[in-house]
Amino acid sequence: MEFAFLLGIMAGAMTTGSIVPQVFKIVESKSARDVSTLFFVIMAGGMLLWLVYGTLRSDMVIVLWNGLSLGLTLVILALKKVYA
Amino acid sequence: MEFAFLLGIMAGAMTTGSIVPQVFKIVESKSARDVSTLFFVIMAGGMLLWLVYGTLRSDMVIVLWNGLSLGLTLVILALKKVYA
Repeated sequence: MEFAFLLGIMAGAMTTGSIVPQVFKIVESKSARDVSTLFFVIMAGGMLLWLVYGTLRSDMVIVLWNGLSLGLTLVILALKKVYA
Repeated sequence: MEFAFLLGIMAGAMTTGSIVPQVFKIVESKSARDVSTLFFVIMAGGMLLWLVYGTLRSDMVIVLWNGLSLGLTLVILALKKVYA
């Protein structure tokens, strides 16, 4: 269980962390034309459900990372609004 | 636990399903310029770790959805190679 926890921390750091370069890419190029709005809208909804799922299973690793991912996804949706 | 399982199925359908329109968008526009390779490479690595995490926690919902997501992510990376 100790090992699973550490693995979950690493796994989440990667799947959540992967969103960060996408944010920077949009800011740098000032373009989000090829980025799918539908992708990130459905993603945000799913992350919200994962949050509840993690809470019901008392899986704090799931709760932590999906909360952070949800925040980053909302940032990307805001940027897509700005840069179309 | 029944409800958590159903919620996990829905949550995964959304976070994994959200990748599908991104695949179609790239195929339709024949362009993936604004799509970050780094995003999907790190994402794929993280999904692999989530697969192991889900196995260690005997959480088959996590295993199922991360396996599918990993496959879709590899498709996007292949498309990015094709359409640069």
